Formats: sequence, structure tokens, C-alpha cells
Amino acid sequence: MLPNVINKIQNALLKNYKRNTSSYTINTILQNTKAGDKINLKGWIKSLRKQKENIFIDISDGSTSEKLQIIIAQNVAPKNISTGASISTSGVIQLSPKGQKELNAEEITIHGDCVVSDGYPFAPRKQYTPEYIRQHLHFRPRTNKFSSLLRIRSNAHISFHNYLTSQGYINVQTPILTSNDCEGAGEVFRVLPENQALVKSMAKEAQSLDEAFFDTKTFLTVSGQLHLEAAAHGLSKVYTLGPTFRAENSRSRLHLAEFYMLEAEIAFIDRIEDLMSPIEKLIKNVTKMVLDTNENDISVCRNDGTVNFAWLEKDFAVMTYAEAENVLKNHQEFENGFRTENGITKEHEFFLVKHCGNIPVFVINWPKDIKPFYMRECPNDTSMVAALDLLVPEVGEIVGGSLRENDLNKLKEKLPKDSNGLDWYMDLRKFGGVPTGGYGLGFERYLLFLTGISNIKDVIPFPRWPHNCNM
Amino acid sequence: MLPNVINKIQNALLKNYKRNTSSYTINTILQNTKAGDKINLKGWIKSLRKQKENIFIDISDGSTSEKLQIIIAQNVAPKNISTGASISTSGVIQLSPKGQKELNAEEITIHGDCVVSDGYPFAPRKQYTPEYIRQHLHFRPRTNKFSSLLRIRSNAHISFHNYLTSQGYINVQTPILTSNDCEGAGEVFRVLPENQALVKSMAKEAQSLDEAFFDTKTFLTVSGQLHLEAAAHGLSKVYTLGPTFRAENSRSRLHLAEFYMLEAEIAFIDRIEDLMSPIEKLIKNVTKMVLDTNENDISVCRNDGTVNFAWLEKDFAVMTYAEAENVLKNHQEFENGFRTENGITKEHEFFLVKHCGNIPVFVINWPKDIKPFYMRECPNDTSMVAALDLLVPEVGEIVGGSLRENDLNKLKEKLPKDSNGLDWYMDLRKFGGVPTGGYGLGFERYLLFLTGISNIKDVIPFPRWPHNCNM
Repeated sequence: MLPNVINKIQNALLKNYKRNTSSYTINTILQNTKAGDKINLKGWIKSLRKQKENIFIDISDGSTSEKLQIIIAQNVAPKNISTGASISTSGVIQLSPKGQKELNAEEITIHGDCVVSDGYPFAPRKQYTPEYIRQHLHFRPRTNKFSSLLRIRSNAHISFHNYLTSQGYINVQTPILTSNDCEGAGEVFRVLPENQALVKSMAKEAQSLDEAFFDTKTFLTVSGQLHLEAAAHGLSKVYTLGPTFRAENSRSRLHLAEFYMLEAEIAFIDRIEDLMSPIEKLIKNVTKMVLDTNENDISVCRNDGTVNFAWLEKDFAVMTYAEAENVLKNHQEFENGFRTENGITKEHEFFLVKHCGNIPVFVINWPKDIKPFYMRECPNDTSMVAALDLLVPEVGEIVGGSLRENDLNKLKEKLPKDSNGLDWYMDLRKFGGVPTGGYGLGFERYLLFLTGISNIKDVIPFPRWPHNCNM
Repeated sequence: MLPNVINKIQNALLKNYKRNTSSYTINTILQNTKAGDKINLKGWIKSLRKQKENIFIDISDGSTSEKLQIIIAQNVAPKNISTGASISTSGVIQLSPKGQKELNAEEITIHGDCVVSDGYPFAPRKQYTPEYIRQHLHFRPRTNKFSSLLRIRSNAHISFHNYLTSQGYINVQTPILTSNDCEGAGEVFRVLPENQALVKSMAKEAQSLDEAFFDTKTFLTVSGQLHLEAAAHGLSKVYTLGPTFRAENSRSRLHLAEFYMLEAEIAFIDRIEDLMSPIEKLIKNVTKMVLDTNENDISVCRNDGTVNFAWLEKDFAVMTYAEAENVLKNHQEFENGFRTENGITKEHEFFLVKHCGNIPVFVINWPKDIKPFYMRECPNDTSMVAALDLLVPEVGEIVGGSLRENDLNKLKEKLPKDSNGLDWYMDLRKFGGVPTGGYGLGFERYLLFLTGISNIKDVIPFPRWPHNCNM
């Protein structure tokens, strides 16, 4: 197992500061206190039981999936105490009969009430569906499962950064606003200033108002790849992890209008193996780093309690597109069969993963005519390109990547006729050009794979999809 | 000094993999090899000198600001070798007469030529202005100073994440697309699908096409604060570090249309000191973490070679807005004087910083009528709010923050009449409400402060500002 990186940093940093009691969280109480320690704590009441003389309260503060039990005498506790209220409390740590830490509270102060009958959508001790909870986005971070998801997401995010940095990658943030429109034809969002007076004041003679602010039509990014290629021509290994957009009317459980993508680009590689190996190491190492810190949170997300990461100890499977096609053709059970011209659907992806023993599988070497212009031809078959998809259990595709065409003349031939403003992309090949390759990993899809959550809207803090942009 | 966090992680991770010689970078060569080691290396030629029998080549690969000198016999080197070309080479590490590592190369392979006369904008051994280099954005990551900046930016970014994570903050990515429009009135970008057929197919009866995709008008975020407040009501300490947008026609050296902001929100705090202290610790610790790894890169960016971080050892200054006003009124030299009703300008900010001894200075407790509705009144003067700006040398304001009004009735009074769709924000106070406070730090402005670079367009990979959205 890898070291618990964040804990190491935390311990190193903590030495620089005196601890003061007001900085306790449930996480630090569980890790760093002993019976008899006097502490204070702030959080929200998750449940409460009144007994003859005492009240037993479970409190949560977001620092961990675990709750701390507080015991307070009835005659000391505030009268209006209720589930959902925010409180401060202080007292002494003691061990329960079962040996668990609990707080023998001397006092409780209520900061904010939570009266369900005033319109709070969650009643105590009730279970709600993800769909119901999603209708109350602003309260969602308070719910058990979603707060676990947010801790997992936070740690997975920083683990991607730490792992790639440790491997010598430079984080180059690619732009959200872009004037390149060639990649996402028909599925892009336009961006315009809201203030029409401003736009008119900025427009040049005979200029469309649409282009007045930036002197060009401007879109939300669908991929930072082309920009990363520019950075890789000088920094060798680069990546970006940020928001990406698609204006698609898709309501599947795997699509969002705004989602996060990790994209990396590596210079001086010219074999598909040089791309598969770092992707496999990345996913295995980041998963180990998250498991090391958030195993309890992952158990909370996986309702059935099964946390099966056997795939971590196995090599990812590899098959060519041609091999995949053969497997699919020989299987008769698909709803609409399998036809080459319709490509590989989600149903086919799941079948291929099962066929390979329910582990992640790379599908490599794809037909050139269904892939974008910038992909590099396979050396021994120019009808194919050196591209890969990584398919995983439960989710299907989570990574797509390829080697890039770095022959200037071949690239010129393949460039779509309607692509404007890509002279700079050609320049990369013309001056100090190198073979590069790269990939994009869907961050939310990775989180689905990690947590077993089934809908992508439940692994992002504020989901945006057709007809939905609340808050 | 803090530990070199990334190096620690790197060493921990590297133990998990066998090193192979093809993974050498100039950074790992300088750190981990000794004379006599056989290595190979890939990179770009930064300069070259031909002598009688040998060619001396400086090579860069982006892994560090340092270059590695390669020596190769004339009769072995490729004939067309030139500055800017990309190469692979192999040979043996030896020490120069001055004791520096260099590579005695056995062979060099050229991957891509770089012929200046074909239109490459940089000639060997010439210096160019930042404005000139900025016109060639796609080549900028290859230039010495900007590649140093990108390494600094990458490390500063991850250091913010690692520091805040170590302090118990959860990273909650706030949305880029938002239906809340109250904050950036008049300075927001609108977002619309480009595909008009799609929009028409999605529009409901009597619905404006502008609102068809999301069922609401949608904007690019100007701040994640309100969303972070929702997350803080459950997770206690949260932050986000991502792109933010302003549709302003500003051409100053300190403004961009797309920039990065670190925003944090802390629950259960009700004193401005509880906000100042974590901001000061954050900036000092992150700066130490970056200096620990990127001191050479910072020297490259600071042309004059002076790296003065004396402020790291001093307490930040604190003055109230009233005190700042008095200082400014008593100073007669301002171009347009100082008048309360015009507020504090950039010129005034610089003066206040100098007045405090050229160290960062917090200005706290601001007049309520010039600040947004959500700020909390000062307990002893209800005409003022518990807000802060942090001003730093050379840049002026880099942080703005405040305590938030958590009294539901006061907030209702102050809510702007035209703000729609903020019921959820009120709900946060109605159910389990807590006092919170938070701040936003301009990431690029912090980088200006750190590097001494004067124009914000030169500290972001792909700058967007009025009339400019290249690539």
C-alpha cells in the first residue's frame, strides 16, 4: 500500500502550530484524544434519543463519516434541542461500554434550530432516494451518503494532482473560454456578455455584436487537449483537471452538461503501450491513495457494503478493436445485435468488460474513419489509428486517448475543411515537433467506478443537465 | 521551513516502481545520477556552440529551469542540428571542469527541426518582451521565463490544495454554470447552446429560446461563495479553486476576463480575527512550500535577481477602514486627492502597503453601503460590516472576505429587490444555520506577488481579456 500522503503532510504541518482546543473536529478527536481529555466541538445533530435522565445525541461535523455520541443530562440540555440543529458543546472524552469514544457534555449551545414543520425536507430517521435528495441541492452536503461522496471526491481530486506531480507532470490549466471550435461541432455552448450596452460600446465597425467582446466567437471548452499539446512541446509532461462542457440533450445516467476531465499529454512517445502503462498506474495508485484515507466513506456509498477492489492486483486486459468486434459479433444476445457501422454501444462495453473477467480493459487500434483528425495512424495498418478506450465495470468508458499525428503533411490532409484558426496547431509540428500522446479521463465516471454510485448527478456537488441548472 | 512535500510523495511513490533509464529528466539527472552513469534524455535545444572538434549544446526538457550541457563530437552529430530542434540523445554523465554535471553524448537523433527562416518567431540568443512573446501563445511554454512561471503556478496550485486539505478543508467544486445572477450584475457572461435546432427542439411552449436548454437563463460564475456556504453548512470547512469570469472592458495589468480564484468558507466563526488568522497562515505556508521547490524558477521570474521574502517572518499589519481613511486623507500627494465617496483606488492601496512597512496589510471593518448584502454587521457599529481586504506590495488587493449575515430577518431586509432564486440561500439560515465567514484569493494576483511579474496576462497559460481570446 502507498503511504497515507495527506496524513503525512498534515502531521508535518501541524508541528508548526500549537494545537488549540477550539480546533477539534470529530476526525481529530477520534485520532488524537484519550479518555479524560477536555474538548469542545461544533456540528449538527444527526439523531437524538431522550432517556430518563440523559439525552444521547449523535453529532456530525463533516470531517469524517463517523458520528460522535454526546451524552448530556436532561436538566442541562436546551429545551428546544432537535435533529438538524447546529450546536456547540464542550465536555470530557470517555469510553462507552463498547470501548468507543464519546463525549460527556457539560453544556450545549444551539446556534440554529431546525424545525421540520417549517419546511425542512428531511425528517429524522427517514431514508430518501437520491432523486428526492437531488431536488434539495443546497441541503445535500448535510446528508450522510453525499457528505461521504464529497470527501471521496476531494481526496480523489488531490490524489490525481499529487500522483501526477510526483511523476514529473506540470499542471497547465487550459482555458475554459476558447475560440477553437473544431472539436465539439454542434455540441458547444456559446459565451456572450450579458450587458448589451457594453457589447455595443466595444464593437468595431462592421463587426457582429456576437464577436465584439473578444473579436471572435467564443465557446466553452470541450477539451483542453490541443492546448495541452502546445504546452507538452516544451514541458514534456503536462496535465489539466478542470470543467468541460457539452450542449447535448442527453439524459442518461452517465452524462452532464458540465463535468470534470483529467487530461494529460506526454511528449516523446510513439507506442500505444507508452500511453496504456501510465494510465493503468495512475488509476491504480490514485485508487489506493483514496482507499487509504476514505475506506469508510466508500463503504457508506456502496450500499451493499461490498468493497471489491480485486482488480487493483490484476493487470488491465488489452484487446484490439478488431478482436472486440469479433467477440461482439459472436455474441447473439444484444438487443439490436452488433453491426460494425453502428459502433460500440454502452451495452457492448459492459459485455466486453464481463468477457475479460470484470476488470478494466483497454480497447486499442480503432478505425480511422470514426476517430478525430489528430489521431496517428497505426504503423502497420493505415486504416487504423493508435487510439484507446479504457472500459471499466459498471460504467463502461472512463478514458479515451491516442497518439497524435505529428507529421505536418499528413495532418494537413486530414484537417477538416471548416476548421479555422488552427495554424498554431500546425506550427507545433513545424518547429521543434515531437511525437506526443495523451488521454482524457472523466473524473465523475471514475468516481462512479470507485463508489458504485449509479447516477453521475450524484457524484458532483452541483449537477447541470438538460432542463436543470439549480442554484 | 516546511518539508518539501512533493519530493516526499515522489520518493514514497518511486519506491513502488523500478526506475528505467528512459524515464530520466534533467531534474532527475541533476538529483539522482553520478559521473559514469549511462543515461538517455529527450528535450529541446536552447543554444549551441560549435568548436573545432565538438559541439556544445544546452538542452531543456521543462522539468527544471536548469539546462543540461551536452558535448558531442562534430563527426557524430547530425548535420542539420539547430536551436529549437527536439532531440533524443544518450551518453555518459561526467563532471565539467567547474564540477557541474554534463552529458558526454554518443549520439543525437533529431525529431523535429526548427528553421527560423520558415517563420519561427524567436531567433537564437535574442531577448524578447513579454508583449511580443504573448503574441505567440502556443510557443510561450518553450520560453525560459514562462516555463519557470508554469512550474511555479503548478506547484503553487497543488500547495494550496495540500495545505488546505491538511487543515481539514474539503474541496467542493462550485459550478461554472449558474442560474444565480445577483452578484455580478452587469458584468456576467451568458451561456447558450450554439446549435439552434437543438434549442428549438428543447423549448417548451411559450418559453424563450434563451432559457430552453436549462429552463433558466444561465451565466458563467463570478464567485462560488454562495454555493460554498451551502456546503459549509454540513462540512464545516470547505474551499474551491477554479476559473471565474468577468465581462468587464478592463485593460489594466491586473484584470482578466477568465481568472482563477481560491475561495474558502468556514463555519462556526463570528470574529474577523477567525478569518484573518487562517488567511495569513495559508499565504505564508503556501509561499514557503513553493520556495522550497521552485526557488530557482522564482529567481528566473524576478529579473533583478532579488528574492526578498522578509515579509514571511513578520506579522501581517492590520488597520481598520477608518484608520486607512485617516492615513489617506492626511497624505496630500495623490493625483486626484482622496475622497471618501470615491473609495480606495489602486494608488491608495500601494500607499497603505508602503505606510505599513511594505508588508501585507489587512484593512478591516468596511462601510456597509459599499459592500454586498450578505456581509455581517460589526457588533459595535451597524453602519460597518465585518469585511476585510488583504493588500500586498506590488499588487494591492489579493484577498477579499467577510463574515456572513446569518440572521434570517436581517438578511431578508438587505436582500436586493431584483435577486431571484435565492430562497435556498435563506433556507441555510432557517434550518441548522450557523455563523460562517469566508474569503476569495485571486490566484493570478498571488502569483504576481510571488514572482514579481508585472502583468497578469503573463502568469496564466492562456490569457483572455477584451479583444483577445487566442487559441
